[in-house]
Amino acid sequence: MSWELTAADLPDLARGATLLGTGGGGDPYVGQLMVANALGSRSITVLDPDELADDLVVIPTAQMGAPTVVIEKMPAGTEPSLALQTLEEYLGVRAGATMPIECGGINSMIPLLVAAERGLPVVDADGMGRAFPELSMETFAVYGVHGSPLALAGERGERVVIDTGDDDRQMEWLARGVTIRLGGVAHIAEYVMSGADVRRTAVPRTLSMALALGRAIRLAREEKRSPFDAIESALAPTLYNKMVTLFEGKVADVERRTTEGFARGVAKIVADGPDAAGELEIRFQNENLLALRDGELVAIVPDLICVVERDSAEPITTEGLRYGQRVRVLGISTPDLMRTPEALAAFGPGAFGLDKSFEPVEVMATR
Amino acid sequence: MSWELTAADLPDLARGATLLGTGGGGDPYVGQLMVANALGSRSITVLDPDELADDLVVIPTAQMGAPTVVIEKMPAGTEPSLALQTLEEYLGVRAGATMPIECGGINSMIPLLVAAERGLPVVDADGMGRAFPELSMETFAVYGVHGSPLALAGERGERVVIDTGDDDRQMEWLARGVTIRLGGVAHIAEYVMSGADVRRTAVPRTLSMALALGRAIRLAREEKRSPFDAIESALAPTLYNKMVTLFEGKVADVERRTTEGFARGVAKIVADGPDAAGELEIRFQNENLLALRDGELVAIVPDLICVVERDSAEPITTEGLRYGQRVRVLGISTPDLMRTPEALAAFGPGAFGLDKSFEPVEVMATR
Repeated sequence: MSWELTAADLPDLARGATLLGTGGGGDPYVGQLMVANALGSRSITVLDPDELADDLVVIPTAQMGAPTVVIEKMPAGTEPSLALQTLEEYLGVRAGATMPIECGGINSMIPLLVAAERGLPVVDADGMGRAFPELSMETFAVYGVHGSPLALAGERGERVVIDTGDDDRQMEWLARGVTIRLGGVAHIAEYVMSGADVRRTAVPRTLSMALALGRAIRLAREEKRSPFDAIESALAPTLYNKMVTLFEGKVADVERRTTEGFARGVAKIVADGPDAAGELEIRFQNENLLALRDGELVAIVPDLICVVERDSAEPITTEGLRYGQRVRVLGISTPDLMRTPEALAAFGPGAFGLDKSFEPVEVMATR
Repeated sequence: MSWELTAADLPDLARGATLLGTGGGGDPYVGQLMVANALGSRSITVLDPDELADDLVVIPTAQMGAPTVVIEKMPAGTEPSLALQTLEEYLGVRAGATMPIECGGINSMIPLLVAAERGLPVVDADGMGRAFPELSMETFAVYGVHGSPLALAGERGERVVIDTGDDDRQMEWLARGVTIRLGGVAHIAEYVMSGADVRRTAVPRTLSMALALGRAIRLAREEKRSPFDAIESALAPTLYNKMVTLFEGKVADVERRTTEGFARGVAKIVADGPDAAGELEIRFQNENLLALRDGELVAIVPDLICVVERDSAEPITTEGLRYGQRVRVLGISTPDLMRTPEALAAFGPGAFGLDKSFEPVEVMATR
């Protein structure tokens, strides 16, 4: 069912989207402020995928770049709408709605910013069902919608169109090169599709799920209940219905480097109770890719690996990880359409150069 | 006066353009073959700048990239026309003519390739009056025509549009990033202008001058006359009418590296006669930038520094320089419109980070 989103929903949505962003998807705080500012007291219509007209023109919008840069380099705010307008002009079409390409602090917000500025509705779905570091890692692409042509806008009004036909990896490669030269962050419009395409290729209802998750965590805190039970209950009726606690402990080390436009690194978390032993290692490329407990794999892409504060369950991005944080690490199952062989070829372990096979987080947990 | 160019003119044109390319502008052989193949027995109309309609739409076309790459990575041949078409579609205009952006082995040929394929005339002028390494180093830009928007095409049919408003340096920066990611070479259309703009901003009649130079060198060889006297005579009636012999000797060392999409380096030429002494050092970035004779400056950008074979006067590109070659190095004066303060700001010594002031080659020769 379609619904109306207001500025009051943004903190909960940002919290839930950051959890689903699995370490990436950009800084939640910046995104929230930009949308709240653009929206004022108005509301945005969020369209349920099942209710879209088959021929509705849907043009997703997003930010691309290394999270390391994004938290220091504030966007002017007009870039996402400029990217959308550039793509509309290039193709000679008008968007009937926009949509996120991923879940995450900023990339769940950018389409809302565009929606607020342009008076467009937003589709309650996305193309990653989490966050991934590359533009070609989309269920849209896996199930036959191409990312190209892509339009990209920079903070000084630069406009770039990249058209690589059916080669989405080349599109990502060129867009990344431009983004690096724009200082490490840019805003984009891509994956133009119809309402029928959305139903066939998108991960459905991830905006409403993010809002429900963020709200559940907040209410649990206010009512002094366990926020982890609240997360589990909020996930139960969704396509992400299996949650596993992978580890609890203290962040002991974070190694992070920004290379080729990505933030890559490793975080080590050690057990910190009186009788505690063992450690968890998380490897990330913008987002968390895999978790090894005492050297043994316990979760791997595309399943969600979410690091949250141990008491409040506030999600922590890979950029926010700091020595000494007390954290809990959650593994969350992803929908079936993200675990097919075609999907795993696009964003499973091999797509990140990891020498491991995918196994569902809930299966590994039973060993 | 406008004139017709046929395939029989190409070897002379390539030779002359390579001389004017002052070490850069791309490999002459590849360019010639591509145009000869596209042209067959037809001819191309070369329009004199004075005869252009004021409102003629002129869209220059070119190759961009490091010469090191260009000689190993053959273009598919369709890229320049695809770049032109992409820019036409983006702007909603049709080109009435194309034009070179620089003189040089390949960049005097690319517009002819487009002309042959599209049945367009070519304007007898260019925007550098030689070759320069960066797209913003254009008399077009110096005198008020902007390079942006630029369209770029890759060998696998990739199309990119870069629109940076009036910021031609940002356009160059982004286009260079895309070119690097396309493997180091791409084809472009940019600097859309009117016939009136051409008259105001272009270096006139450099195609016909290149053809005259190449022909003069060939005829002198055939008739056993000095090709150097022939070059001097061919230059006399042009805007490039002062030629100085800077040095004669043997190439003793070439240091060359391809970084950030450019070929940069230093060549050392030592005197090699029985009583000879001294050496000439040439520094280049794709093109020759300055010449020091025994440590003293004798020629500097934008004046032409041309390395040619000592006997035949065949021009040698920076990529073609090899240990042991017997060469003569010529300094050639550039037209006044390339030596104004505005022009020197765009492509004088400071624009290349050189800690020297411009002095005309013919003035330094009188010391």
